[in-house]
Amino acid sequence: MIYIESKENNLFKNTKKLKERKNRTKTSRYIIEGFRLVQEAFKAKVDVDYLIVTEDAHDKVDEFLGKYINDEIKIYEISSNLFKELISTENPQGILAVIKMNTMELKFDGDFYLLCDKVQDPGNLGTIIRTAHAAGVQEIILTKGTVDIYNEKTIRSTMGSIFYIPIYYDDENLSLVKELKGKGFNLVVTSLDTDKNFFQADLRGRVLLTVGNEGNGVSKEVLEMADTKVKIPMPGNAESLNVAVASSVIMYEKVRQNQL
Amino acid sequence: MIYIESKENNLFKNTKKLKERKNRTKTSRYIIEGFRLVQEAFKAKVDVDYLIVTEDAHDKVDEFLGKYINDEIKIYEISSNLFKELISTENPQGILAVIKMNTMELKFDGDFYLLCDKVQDPGNLGTIIRTAHAAGVQEIILTKGTVDIYNEKTIRSTMGSIFYIPIYYDDENLSLVKELKGKGFNLVVTSLDTDKNFFQADLRGRVLLTVGNEGNGVSKEVLEMADTKVKIPMPGNAESLNVAVASSVIMYEKVRQNQL
Repeated sequence: MIYIESKENNLFKNTKKLKERKNRTKTSRYIIEGFRLVQEAFKAKVDVDYLIVTEDAHDKVDEFLGKYINDEIKIYEISSNLFKELISTENPQGILAVIKMNTMELKFDGDFYLLCDKVQDPGNLGTIIRTAHAAGVQEIILTKGTVDIYNEKTIRSTMGSIFYIPIYYDDENLSLVKELKGKGFNLVVTSLDTDKNFFQADLRGRVLLTVGNEGNGVSKEVLEMADTKVKIPMPGNAESLNVAVASSVIMYEKVRQNQL
Repeated sequence: MIYIESKENNLFKNTKKLKERKNRTKTSRYIIEGFRLVQEAFKAKVDVDYLIVTEDAHDKVDEFLGKYINDEIKIYEISSNLFKELISTENPQGILAVIKMNTMELKFDGDFYLLCDKVQDPGNLGTIIRTAHAAGVQEIILTKGTVDIYNEKTIRSTMGSIFYIPIYYDDENLSLVKELKGKGFNLVVTSLDTDKNFFQADLRGRVLLTVGNEGNGVSKEVLEMADTKVKIPMPGNAESLNVAVASSVIMYEKVRQNQL
């Protein structure tokens, strides 16, 4: 246990920099906060660089993380005031971990991929990742313009699912999407421009399901490449659905059809 | 147009009181904020008591609400500083409406009801109401201990669906649930205590679908009355789903089965 006394401490300064996306990208590291998430990170065996805890939280480390802690895990202690500078959570639990990003290669195997196309809200993206994990999505692609997955709010909404599912950013030319289509993936989009309900489409086999932007839906570039257009019927005549809900409903239709 | 100059103004004081649930209940009134929601309220023909706008927002009233405004709609103008005391939204648009709650009687007709059983998070409840509206749920019952539907965050997450779907609080004895069961409604709950996937259950006909609490699921009292227990399979081995997602997935399975 090393005690961090001041803001001038290098580890403190480097950790604080991870609040900005550009520094996360540069160092391939991100912050998670709270006992539950840190527990999940250990459970998922992701690469935990180090922990920072407040004095209060320190007393609970054994209780919550005892079985994961060994001499190789570096733990730093810090005052509550300094801790608050490192994270944005309103009621922090006083424990954070710095995690090394997963840099696996896309595998392109399996039959269930998700494409998040300019999803803007961190909470929505996190909830989508959580459902994708549950529904058995194997890998997730994000188009440029999608909110950062290592945003604190996104991570919190994933409830730990972010540690289990490989996620990649596509380039401007949508090269990954094209590659998946080349491998026989059925690019499915929701669109107002069809009468086919999502449960009338065949979602068995290789599917790349698209989730569009909250306000504008699926982008033109992706729409143009679509193999299957579906709509979600709204017998109650609401104007729209939340994007996390809309994508979850379709993901679970694939789960259903996979069992037919 | 009447200008409210001071905090001592009675209308100002009465409006501010509506930030507290007990005063909303006492007066059967609640506040909504933002042009989109106010527009939806007029469109849905709910009972709008009066509007309060800031000077900035006032200029936009014609553009956004022109066709709904007539001499019977009272509009009060107020300074931005006073306006901020009336609502909790971080970036308010400077327009609010005070709405009279819908006090219709439960109809008990139709075939699709939703029971929210101690749902805690306002955003989740709002999203559930929004999906319920889209999926054609006819009425919603809330058990005691469910978060207030007239909470600002809940209302915002409904995106206006709250104006379209009658919602009732049940009493401690779950009298409404019992009455619905008596009328042949199939009380469906999610449970870990079953092998039946939700898409293997017959959801046609009269269904009362239960959404449980975020941490604890469906309460013991409701579980004991359940007619059908289902689970949501998680082929990806996630620990759980967001409650709004879980309930939406089952609501849409009923939409699908209704079309068979």
